Amino acid sequence: NDWLQAYRQGQSPAELLAALRASIEQSEFTDGQHTDGSSWISLASEAQLQQQLEQLAELLQQHGGDISLLPLYGVPCAIKDNIDVAGFNTTAACPSFAYLPDQDAHAVALLKQAGAIVLGKTSLDQFATGLVGTRSPYGAVPNPFNSDYISGGSSSGSAVALARGQVAFSLGTDTAGSGRVPAGFNHLLGLKPSRGVISTRGVVPACRSLDCISVFALNSQDANSVYQVLAQYDGEDSYARPLASTGKSEVKTLAVPQQLDWFGDDYQQQAFEQACQQAKRLGYRLKTIDFSPMLQLAELLYQGPWVAERFAAVGEFIRTNSKAHLDPVVAAIIGEGDQASAVDAFNAEYQRQALSRQIQQVFEQVDALWVPTTPCLPTQAQVNSAPIEINSRLGTFTNFVNLADLSALAVPAHLRADGLPFGITLIAPAFSESALLQFAQHWQAELALPTAPALLDVRPEQTVVLAVVG
Amino acid sequence: NDWLQAYRQGQSPAELLAALRASIEQSEFTDGQHTDGSSWISLASEAQLQQQLEQLAELLQQHGGDISLLPLYGVPCAIKDNIDVAGFNTTAACPSFAYLPDQDAHAVALLKQAGAIVLGKTSLDQFATGLVGTRSPYGAVPNPFNSDYISGGSSSGSAVALARGQVAFSLGTDTAGSGRVPAGFNHLLGLKPSRGVISTRGVVPACRSLDCISVFALNSQDANSVYQVLAQYDGEDSYARPLASTGKSEVKTLAVPQQLDWFGDDYQQQAFEQACQQAKRLGYRLKTIDFSPMLQLAELLYQGPWVAERFAAVGEFIRTNSKAHLDPVVAAIIGEGDQASAVDAFNAEYQRQALSRQIQQVFEQVDALWVPTTPCLPTQAQVNSAPIEINSRLGTFTNFVNLADLSALAVPAHLRADGLPFGITLIAPAFSESALLQFAQHWQAELALPTAPALLDVRPEQTVVLAVVG
Repeated sequence: NDWLQAYRQGQSPAELLAALRASIEQSEFTDGQHTDGSSWISLASEAQLQQQLEQLAELLQQHGGDISLLPLYGVPCAIKDNIDVAGFNTTAACPSFAYLPDQDAHAVALLKQAGAIVLGKTSLDQFATGLVGTRSPYGAVPNPFNSDYISGGSSSGSAVALARGQVAFSLGTDTAGSGRVPAGFNHLLGLKPSRGVISTRGVVPACRSLDCISVFALNSQDANSVYQVLAQYDGEDSYARPLASTGKSEVKTLAVPQQLDWFGDDYQQQAFEQACQQAKRLGYRLKTIDFSPMLQLAELLYQGPWVAERFAAVGEFIRTNSKAHLDPVVAAIIGEGDQASAVDAFNAEYQRQALSRQIQQVFEQVDALWVPTTPCLPTQAQVNSAPIEINSRLGTFTNFVNLADLSALAVPAHLRADGLPFGITLIAPAFSESALLQFAQHWQAELALPTAPALLDVRPEQTVVLAVVG
Repeated sequence: NDWLQAYRQGQSPAELLAALRASIEQSEFTDGQHTDGSSWISLASEAQLQQQLEQLAELLQQHGGDISLLPLYGVPCAIKDNIDVAGFNTTAACPSFAYLPDQDAHAVALLKQAGAIVLGKTSLDQFATGLVGTRSPYGAVPNPFNSDYISGGSSSGSAVALARGQVAFSLGTDTAGSGRVPAGFNHLLGLKPSRGVISTRGVVPACRSLDCISVFALNSQDANSVYQVLAQYDGEDSYARPLASTGKSEVKTLAVPQQLDWFGDDYQQQAFEQACQQAKRLGYRLKTIDFSPMLQLAELLYQGPWVAERFAAVGEFIRTNSKAHLDPVVAAIIGEGDQASAVDAFNAEYQRQALSRQIQQVFEQVDALWVPTTPCLPTQAQVNSAPIEINSRLGTFTNFVNLADLSALAVPAHLRADGLPFGITLIAPAFSESALLQFAQHWQAELALPTAPALLDVRPEQTVVLAVVG
């Protein structure tokens, strides 16, 4: 743990984090204002950082000064701006929607209790509606590997801030794939835990019955450390569930989709084929299966009545709000979300139930599904030319996961031949997080890939990053 | 087991069941037509009985002639007429809706594999929409203890046929209380298992996401025998769930509602107070609790968007069908079921989730809820004067149970001072069936109440009944 090691060697959180804060301010803000297209919407002020450092000192005192009792002691993180952090505006990427919460989201409170320091709030597709990272009046967040390409969404800012080495981990949310797609496009791990395992109290809802908080990390140990801190049952979140032992305990056999449409992205296809070869070489058994139930369920998410959940959350706000602060694509999608009837909703629920049952039966044969995180990596220009269609492609292998009550982990693989990131995603039954993280540990140890910050030429001494927290 | 005992002593199913069939035909049918207000809609013909007896003989041969391997060998039962039995019309109490299934419902197939003989199909509130037993073009099913009173619904016929000693057990369905209310009004046990434990494949849906098959029996041993046969996971029913061990393992502490409105029915109130005293005397601990979350959730079922599930099932049929075959109250309720929007449905789902969480937390303090099965026992005249309002009263302590994913068992108590049946209902977390049945065994052994057929002066020699199957 680079951060804990630095602190053990006598460096102080105050010193390191003040420097880190200042460097982010310099690169991401202009005259105190968020720079257009930055991955950050708001940054902790010096006073806000100071206050957190004082709380950290108190916390350490309560733990007898033993740093090892605080698994995230002094570790800097970024929080997607649809998750409440006390004292920071929650904008959900809509300036006129912003409110100032006086309480941390349950998950953020857990991070702070473990010693983490929140450096700020990050960009997203407005109201977490999108997988592109471009749908925001705060500007699109370009891909840090090549700014012609998108960074993925909706948790674009949390992914890019981590890829740039500005934080050691970050929180996203994931309803349709928002915690996995940006991981794939930024050479990161993206853990989408089982629904209800991490409390969503204090999160602006997208689809309340499906929303999850997700974790971006540079490696499986980091992801696991943060996950262990966050996976605490919250009796005040009516969608919370205690951890159960019904998930997979290990990942050995992987199901590859029979249906793979790359939408002309040959780099993506080659990278996936390479990853499949690597998995086989590492001893995993790959089995091709019919993916029709998954693809049908994926389509239900936006074509079916679940859009009504987004309307239930912010539809009335969108109807009455000034267009200036709304992303036009998001406003169009959610604004139409009140068209379906309750009869439609129940009929779709029956389809969901039937398809979920078919999908769950697949796990009698295999431990996990093994898919490219996305079938393609689009440019900003492609997204601009067909904003709904391109977005929808990106959800091919992510949209169905929460509808079918599964857990998932996006993991970086070798870069594509064009030097851009490529990720695979493992999908397993609910409560398989540990098995997925064990796979990632093995995968990462064997492939020995450099991390995203290293690839982006961010050296540890610049921010104490390669910021391994675990 | 009176039936098995009779067979062991050399009596033949053919002889006993042919006589039983003939006696039901005589009392319930006129010139081959269902008598108005009978508890039966269709009776097995001599040929249909013969065919089942031949299958039973084959089955016995497959089991080496050992009757004890067939837990329901030659035991006669009745099936609510919204559950498919091959070769019998399924009417759902709507003549023009009727269809002739060529397959048994999964549950009926299991009964037959265990040796049971289906004597026929029984009356119900049309489309299982009602708790009164009066909403049917086949006529109301009067209470066998006093025909001025209702028999309860929607599983009226299955309850009354059993109370009259015409069968040894019967199947109902239970979405809002249809398997409990008629048990309470007919001095029977009514087991409403956890959702998904008994397959609903082959059942005409009421609210598909909530529907359960229920069991009427004369005592806990019978109920348990039938339940053990039926609780088999059905991979082809997308709402099926395997049994889990998360339920209560015993019932000791009981929660009594703080809010008890008897709607002026003093007999009911007195009977409940007596039952509470008896429970205390038997060593159970009663604790008064706030029932607001249960009452609020109960109201959601008919006032909220769940009526849309009924519309999804039969709404279009009702709209296009001749009024002659429709019960006007049922047609009005379901016909309006397409008014709510998907946004309403999701908002109600959030309420359901929040209230369910509150209710589940009650079970950290107590093992089961202890309620009167209904707050009152109405007359047919009362129902006629206010068909919706009276029905709604009957659901006070039943409507919330499936919405909150609980299991329940209605149990007879001492008759009311006016000689009419009174029942209490225990409600526990999902998968608590065994604990509930254990309670009932203790309760019935201590109270030593005569069974409904005995109370109705049906003597065992008449039908080999006091038909204990287990």
